[in-house]
Amino acid sequence: MSEQFTQLQARLADVHNLNMAGAVLDWDQQTYMPQGGVQSRSEQRATLSKIAHQMLTSEETSKLLSDAERDNDGYETTQAFLRVARREFDHATKLPAALVEETSRVTSIAQEVWAQARAANEYSMFAPHLEKIVDINRRTAQALGYEDKLYDALLDQYEEGMTCAQLDPIFKQLKEASIPLIQKIAQQPAIDDSVLARDYDGQTQKSFAERVLDECGFDFNRGRQDLSVHPFCTNFGRGDVRITTRLNTNDLQSALFGSLHEMGHALYEQGIAPDLDGNVLGGGVSLGVHESQSRLWENQVGRSRAFWKHNYRRLQEKFSTQLSDVSEDDFYRAINKVEPSCIRVEADEVTYNLHIILRYEMENDLLEGRLSVADAPEAWNAKMQQYLGVTPPDDAHGILQDVHWSIGAMGYFPTYSLGNILSAQLWNRVLESAPNMEDQIARGDFSVLLPWLRENIHRFGKIYTPKQLVQRATGSPLDVAPYAKYLNDKFGTIYGL
Amino acid sequence: MSEQFTQLQARLADVHNLNMAGAVLDWDQQTYMPQGGVQSRSEQRATLSKIAHQMLTSEETSKLLSDAERDNDGYETTQAFLRVARREFDHATKLPAALVEETSRVTSIAQEVWAQARAANEYSMFAPHLEKIVDINRRTAQALGYEDKLYDALLDQYEEGMTCAQLDPIFKQLKEASIPLIQKIAQQPAIDDSVLARDYDGQTQKSFAERVLDECGFDFNRGRQDLSVHPFCTNFGRGDVRITTRLNTNDLQSALFGSLHEMGHALYEQGIAPDLDGNVLGGGVSLGVHESQSRLWENQVGRSRAFWKHNYRRLQEKFSTQLSDVSEDDFYRAINKVEPSCIRVEADEVTYNLHIILRYEMENDLLEGRLSVADAPEAWNAKMQQYLGVTPPDDAHGILQDVHWSIGAMGYFPTYSLGNILSAQLWNRVLESAPNMEDQIARGDFSVLLPWLRENIHRFGKIYTPKQLVQRATGSPLDVAPYAKYLNDKFGTIYGL
Repeated sequence: MSEQFTQLQARLADVHNLNMAGAVLDWDQQTYMPQGGVQSRSEQRATLSKIAHQMLTSEETSKLLSDAERDNDGYETTQAFLRVARREFDHATKLPAALVEETSRVTSIAQEVWAQARAANEYSMFAPHLEKIVDINRRTAQALGYEDKLYDALLDQYEEGMTCAQLDPIFKQLKEASIPLIQKIAQQPAIDDSVLARDYDGQTQKSFAERVLDECGFDFNRGRQDLSVHPFCTNFGRGDVRITTRLNTNDLQSALFGSLHEMGHALYEQGIAPDLDGNVLGGGVSLGVHESQSRLWENQVGRSRAFWKHNYRRLQEKFSTQLSDVSEDDFYRAINKVEPSCIRVEADEVTYNLHIILRYEMENDLLEGRLSVADAPEAWNAKMQQYLGVTPPDDAHGILQDVHWSIGAMGYFPTYSLGNILSAQLWNRVLESAPNMEDQIARGDFSVLLPWLRENIHRFGKIYTPKQLVQRATGSPLDVAPYAKYLNDKFGTIYGL
Repeated sequence: MSEQFTQLQARLADVHNLNMAGAVLDWDQQTYMPQGGVQSRSEQRATLSKIAHQMLTSEETSKLLSDAERDNDGYETTQAFLRVARREFDHATKLPAALVEETSRVTSIAQEVWAQARAANEYSMFAPHLEKIVDINRRTAQALGYEDKLYDALLDQYEEGMTCAQLDPIFKQLKEASIPLIQKIAQQPAIDDSVLARDYDGQTQKSFAERVLDECGFDFNRGRQDLSVHPFCTNFGRGDVRITTRLNTNDLQSALFGSLHEMGHALYEQGIAPDLDGNVLGGGVSLGVHESQSRLWENQVGRSRAFWKHNYRRLQEKFSTQLSDVSEDDFYRAINKVEPSCIRVEADEVTYNLHIILRYEMENDLLEGRLSVADAPEAWNAKMQQYLGVTPPDDAHGILQDVHWSIGAMGYFPTYSLGNILSAQLWNRVLESAPNMEDQIARGDFSVLLPWLRENIHRFGKIYTPKQLVQRATGSPLDVAPYAKYLNDKFGTIYGL
């Protein structure tokens, strides 16, 4: 290994450690920090970000990187290291400092205004800020560079190599698979899921979820679960991966499936190969691949018939008064109820992706100037009617529902659907290599599933690009067909289609 | 304000924020971090320390500091800022990098070995490491510089301006006040404190302590209490001050008085003036002054008759089975039992300082070469017999009991006794300005005490040197007499002398 490469590694390890320290401060802020800490915490985090950015974009890093690229040992890991380092360096240096500063200023105000606008159901309050954010995203895309569409540059930040040219046909297929299924389900009798809204003690929900996490393979010696307003997964190395959940006494699904979802993210981070830890290759490769892991555990595992064969009696024991009159089958149907609704985060597996496609199309239209910020609520509502057959009662349940735009994030939403699609491709491969997987799950046995995911996805960290990893793990490029079949099979059975 | 001074402030604020981030990481490590996080956490903290040190000692900081010293507005706060900045800069630059590195290497091994040696009761395991640590402390003192004694340079790190020439007569008086009192008490019937070792539910202890903290004025909007193996107080700004405690079901004193002690530290940090927050003047001025606050709340308040007049019935309600047969007076006597023992951290108010004086004398003897590391256990035991009339049964209960030397800290112990002495001087002034303070405490009313401490100590942060602050707050230099009188009065009454 060249001296330059060693120096580059050391320098980027410092940048990595500063970012990890920032992540600890963020975790703390969302879990335990007293409110009086807000001001100094924001200054501490600003200092960490500033110094990490200075170190990453410095002349010294630039030179070490170029030297190492010119003269390296050619090993796969070295090449991957240089690919990711170059990507991070370019991203950080392509954005002019003034634009970064403007983004930070505009979005910190926009977040506040968005929260107020949503609470007041007043889109006009948020509109001028959204105008600025669309403009900033346009300039960000221009600074980052793209071949075909502005959107490609934004998307690439979250999903390396993904473009609209690839997404458009994928989303077209996804629509064609989802909309008719939703329409067929709508003609069936509705499932009664009111049992899920009975009164469930929060701490009991948490302890039940933690027992499930433990059984699935979440390593509590290398992680923990806490409470926060919005559930998330974070990590400060593969040895310290933390998830959070929230407890809602009148919603049995929120903590349980939220925990399984975040656990999916966490298992990915816990499964990174030890030798990649502590530098640019440690960590999941993209948001889409990450989401494939969270969705697989939440849905293919957690919302499966087999999973509840093992777990339902144990849940009944915890909540004997609430669940004594509910059969295992009725419970399974309740947690898989399909119903078009206005709110993305409450959507079921079948309708969820249409919420994403709507946002993807609108973001593109806004960026390309085909849609004005003023006309956006109307466009939103029209698409909701077209795709899901529902019209939001107001903008709070429509265009104002998500935090993403207020924090400046455009191009992020599609990764949720990419995760869904990939989860089904992976699941097919899992079933091919372990045809009795359902029996295993029905016994609470994950001793084949988790190692399979580790072997085929987790351990690689960022060594392969998302595209390479998908090809390697599934034997094909990203493909909607398995997901469409999964939805049709599962919900066809549930709704007797 | 000069441009240089503004730049200096900004630069030192970055250093401060890096150190605060390090403190958050340390708090997390001691409270919630899963064990798997150890390795990456130590790398994250090393990066933060390294970069903070580089920024503090850089050519740029040096130049800004010199320029600001030459050309400043002369205001008291500016002068104080420059005094503390110069002190920190000099401390960081005077120590050669090789010595800092050697200290870190030697002490990280020594800590491990010390823990093993204590567990195995085998001083010979630790001796070669102590030898190195004494030598490192000698060289540290030489690098830092001193006028009279090596020890002065070490002491000054923790208590600015303190020297052996000042400490020797203080400790002589303290001995003369303590030893005869201990001997008189020894002739009285022993107090039975076995009630404190009954079975007390940990969570109930914690909630009782938190109610007390709240009543004393600890601001839970700007702080919190958690559990850790060793209790401590830390802060990340005046708006986020955290304490920890430990719960021992067979020791009613540990959590309660530990909480009051750490709260004393915390109230100091919460009371720093807002305009000093976030830079070198924010934070308590020295370990001795800090300890005066923790001891005042733990002892003058927490172990007073008046305090339990208010709190004992409430404690009895929490622990009705355990305390129903114990009178308020018996409880008060139990928590104030005086008994010479081998372990410093378990010592009562009267015997405590003799443990400190012993360590002070031995550290000096070791540094000056009057005592060899080989002979140290014998010297320890002889002094224990001389001062306290007890001989440790083994080295684990003698010279191996404290962590301090293993982490390289010599010159630290005296600050504990300085805190005790100062607490009594301050308490006298409190009683002068509020003669009915006992009545107030007996009503659980701290609305005069806390503001008095804020006004006379807390708010100043590091604006004054410890010596200036003591003079200003008490009207005299450090003085043993009030503490000697406090001990004689309090324990004379308890033991009927």
